[in-house]
Amino acid sequence: MKKINVGLLGLGTVGSGVVKIIKDHQDKLMHLIGCPVEVTKILVKDIEKARQVVVDKNYLTKDVYEVIRDPEVDVVIEVMGGIEETKDFLLEALQNKKHVVTANKDLMAVYGSELLSVATENGCDLFYEASVAGGIPILRGLVDGLASDRINKLMGIVNGTTNFILTKMSKYGSPYDEVLKEAQDLGYAEADPTADVEGLDAARKMAILSRLGFSMNVDLEDVSVKGISSVTAEDINYSKRLGYTMKLIGVAQRQGEKVEVSVQPTLLPDYHPLASVNDEYNAVYVYGEAVGETMFYGPGAGSLPTATAVVSDLVGVMKNMRLGVNGNSAVAPQFDKNLKLPEEIYSQRFLRIHVADQVGAFSKITSLFSERGVSFEKILQLPLKKDDLAEIVIVTHQASQKDFEEILQLLNDLAVVDNVKSTYRVEGNSWT
Amino acid sequence: MKKINVGLLGLGTVGSGVVKIIKDHQDKLMHLIGCPVEVTKILVKDIEKARQVVVDKNYLTKDVYEVIRDPEVDVVIEVMGGIEETKDFLLEALQNKKHVVTANKDLMAVYGSELLSVATENGCDLFYEASVAGGIPILRGLVDGLASDRINKLMGIVNGTTNFILTKMSKYGSPYDEVLKEAQDLGYAEADPTADVEGLDAARKMAILSRLGFSMNVDLEDVSVKGISSVTAEDINYSKRLGYTMKLIGVAQRQGEKVEVSVQPTLLPDYHPLASVNDEYNAVYVYGEAVGETMFYGPGAGSLPTATAVVSDLVGVMKNMRLGVNGNSAVAPQFDKNLKLPEEIYSQRFLRIHVADQVGAFSKITSLFSERGVSFEKILQLPLKKDDLAEIVIVTHQASQKDFEEILQLLNDLAVVDNVKSTYRVEGNSWT
Repeated sequence: MKKINVGLLGLGTVGSGVVKIIKDHQDKLMHLIGCPVEVTKILVKDIEKARQVVVDKNYLTKDVYEVIRDPEVDVVIEVMGGIEETKDFLLEALQNKKHVVTANKDLMAVYGSELLSVATENGCDLFYEASVAGGIPILRGLVDGLASDRINKLMGIVNGTTNFILTKMSKYGSPYDEVLKEAQDLGYAEADPTADVEGLDAARKMAILSRLGFSMNVDLEDVSVKGISSVTAEDINYSKRLGYTMKLIGVAQRQGEKVEVSVQPTLLPDYHPLASVNDEYNAVYVYGEAVGETMFYGPGAGSLPTATAVVSDLVGVMKNMRLGVNGNSAVAPQFDKNLKLPEEIYSQRFLRIHVADQVGAFSKITSLFSERGVSFEKILQLPLKKDDLAEIVIVTHQASQKDFEEILQLLNDLAVVDNVKSTYRVEGNSWT
Repeated sequence: MKKINVGLLGLGTVGSGVVKIIKDHQDKLMHLIGCPVEVTKILVKDIEKARQVVVDKNYLTKDVYEVIRDPEVDVVIEVMGGIEETKDFLLEALQNKKHVVTANKDLMAVYGSELLSVATENGCDLFYEASVAGGIPILRGLVDGLASDRINKLMGIVNGTTNFILTKMSKYGSPYDEVLKEAQDLGYAEADPTADVEGLDAARKMAILSRLGFSMNVDLEDVSVKGISSVTAEDINYSKRLGYTMKLIGVAQRQGEKVEVSVQPTLLPDYHPLASVNDEYNAVYVYGEAVGETMFYGPGAGSLPTATAVVSDLVGVMKNMRLGVNGNSAVAPQFDKNLKLPEEIYSQRFLRIHVADQVGAFSKITSLFSERGVSFEKILQLPLKKDDLAEIVIVTHQASQKDFEEILQLLNDLAVVDNVKSTYRVEGNSWT
C-alpha cells in the first residue's frame, strides 16, 4: 500500500508537535487512513540546531523548493508563518498538485480566497482548521453542519489576549493600561500588542469563519473593526450594574442574501454562554437554521492544540486522497459577496453620556431617539460629583447603524450634552 | 457510479427529517461522497397514513425484514426506538453486512458493546452520534480528538428536562414539585418523568460517552446514578450564597487506567462554563491531555437537530464505504474495563446539617472530618428560627467517597446532629 509523504514548512513548537503526533499515533493513523504516513521533508532555518523532537537530519533542508517541488511529497503542512512569501510558496505547492494544510490565519484572512480557488483548480485540498482558534474544532463543525444546515449567525470570542485583559478588568475593576502591562509581563500580550488589542487578529479569524460559514468571499477589509484600547473601567462597571459582561465579540450575521461582519467591544447579558468564557479562552457561538444554537469552546492557541488541529486536517486530506475526492470540498464559496448597508445593520446599543444637570436636559436627549423610532430598554441616571453634570447610561432597543450614527452626531451637537463618553454594541438579548 | 441505497426503520418526525434532508441536499451530498444516495426502503406501521414528507408509497413496508434483508440496501438507519426487538433487527442487519446509523440511546447504552463488536466482526460501521445530545457534534469531536489526544475527563449536562427544572428552581426559588408540573404542562417533561428526573436518561448518555471517550466497555450499570427529585429550594439557595450553581452533571473521569462514571446533582462554581448552560440546553465539557479544556454546547434533542446528526453519520458511513475502511473505526474499545473503588473516587462535597444549637456541637462535627484528613473550603452557620437548632453548611476540600460515606454515617450517629439534610458533589473548582 502506497505511503503518504508529508513535507513540513517550519519546525518550531507547532511543527515539532506535528512530527511528534504523527510518530506517536502511527498505528491509529494507519487504522483511520488505511496506509502509512511519514514526514519526509522539513524546511528549517538552521539544520544543526538542537530540536525538541528526534528527526532524521537527511530530511531537513534550508531550501523551500526541495519541499514544495519534491515529486514524492503528497501533502505540504505550513507552520512557518508570514504572508507574502509564504503565499507564493503555497501557490506553487498547489500548482505542483500538493495538498496543503496551514495554521496561518494572517495568510488565510488576506489570501484565503485566492489560495482556495487555486486549490480547487488543481484538484487539491487546502485545509486550515488550525488557523482559527487552534483548540476548537470549529471549522469542521461548520463544514459538517453546512452539509445539511444553513448558518445564520456566528458570534465569537476569538482572541485570547483581549479576553484575558477584559476578564481581569471586569474581575478587579482595574484600568486598561495596568492590565495590559500585567498581560505583557505574563506573556499573554506581545510587546507590541496592536494586532491583538485593536481587534485585527480577531478580524482575521472572523473573515475566515464568515467566509466558510456563509460560503461567501468575505475579505479582511469587509470586517468593521474596533479594539478594546478605549474601554474604561467605568464602562465595565456600568455594564455590570445593568447585568452585562463586556467582551470583544466578532459578529457575522446573515439576513437573506446579505451579511455583516464586525469585531467590537460588545455587552452580553451575564447569562449568555459567551459571557462566562474567561481569561485566554476562546469560543464560537453558531446559530444554524436546523440545529439551533451551538457553541464550541476551548483554548484559542497553544502549540499542542494547534498541532492537534493540523494533524486532524492532515487526516481529512488523506481520507479524501484515498477517496479520490480532493479539491471539491464545500470550502469554495457558493455565493457572491453581498454586504449589508449601514441602514440594514441592526443592534441594541449602550451609551454613556455626560449632560448638564438641568431641567429638560433628559427630555431633549430622549426626543432625539424617539424621533427616529429608537426606544430604550434600560436607563440609569446619576449625578456626577463635579462640574454640575449628570451621567446618563442608556441601553436602546434595536436600532440601525445609520440611525444610531445620526443620533450620536446630533447628541454631540446638543448644548446640554457635555460629552458622549462611550458607546458599545449590545448582543445576545434574544438568547434566553 | 454506483448509487448508495438507504433503508430507514421508522418514519416519525426524525425519520421524516432524514428523508427531507437527503432529498434537499442531494447535490451537496453527491459533492461530499462522489455518488448519489437514496432512501429506498422505509419501515412504517401504517402505509396509508398521511406523511410530513413526500415519499413514494412503493418504498414503504410494514415488514422489517424487507428492509434489513434487502440485498440492495447498503445502510440501515434506525429511528424507530425500542430496545430488545430493535437490537435483534440491528444485529441481523449487521450480519447481512449493512452499515447502521442509530439515534437510539436506550439501545446503545444497554447493548452498545455487543452491537459494536458484531459490527466490527462483519466489517460494518455502526454510528450513533444522534443518540447523545442530537444537536451537539460531541461523538465526532471525541473520535477526531482521540486520533491524536487522550481524554482524561468528561463532564456533561446531558438531559434537557432536568436542566430545565433546575434552571427554573434556581431562577425563581420555586420548589421542585411546582416546577416539574410546569415542565410537564409545557411538554418539557413527560407524564411519567422518572427516566429523566431520576437520572437514568443522563446515565445512558454518560455510558455511551465514556465508552467512546475512554475506549472502554463502560456499561449502564457501571454508572452510579442519583436524580434531582430530592433537590430542595433551600439547597439551591445555599449553593447560590456560596457562589455555586446546581446542575445534574454526568462525570466520567480517568486516573491512569481506572475510570469512574456517575450522574448526580452537583454544585459548580458560578464562573464555570457549564454553570451558564440553562433551560433545556445540553453541553459536554471535555478535558484532553493535548488540547486542554473544550466544550460542546447545543440543543440536546429536537427532531431537526437529531435528523441533522443522523445524516452527518450517514455521510461518515458513505465516505468510509468509498474508502473501503468501514468497520475499523476507533469505536471498538481498546482497553479492558477498570473501575475505580470508592476509596479512589475523590471530589469536594457540600453538606447541609441541622445540629443542636449548643456549645461544642460544631467542634464535635468538625473533628469527625479532621480525623479523616478532610478539611473545609467554606463554612456557613446560621441559627434556625425553630427547635433550638442551627443550620451548618460545609463545602469540603477533596475527599474520597469511602471517607465521606463513613463521615456521613458517624454524623448521623452523633447526638448533637438532628439531621443531615442534604449532600452534593462539588465539581469544577480547579477550573479557573
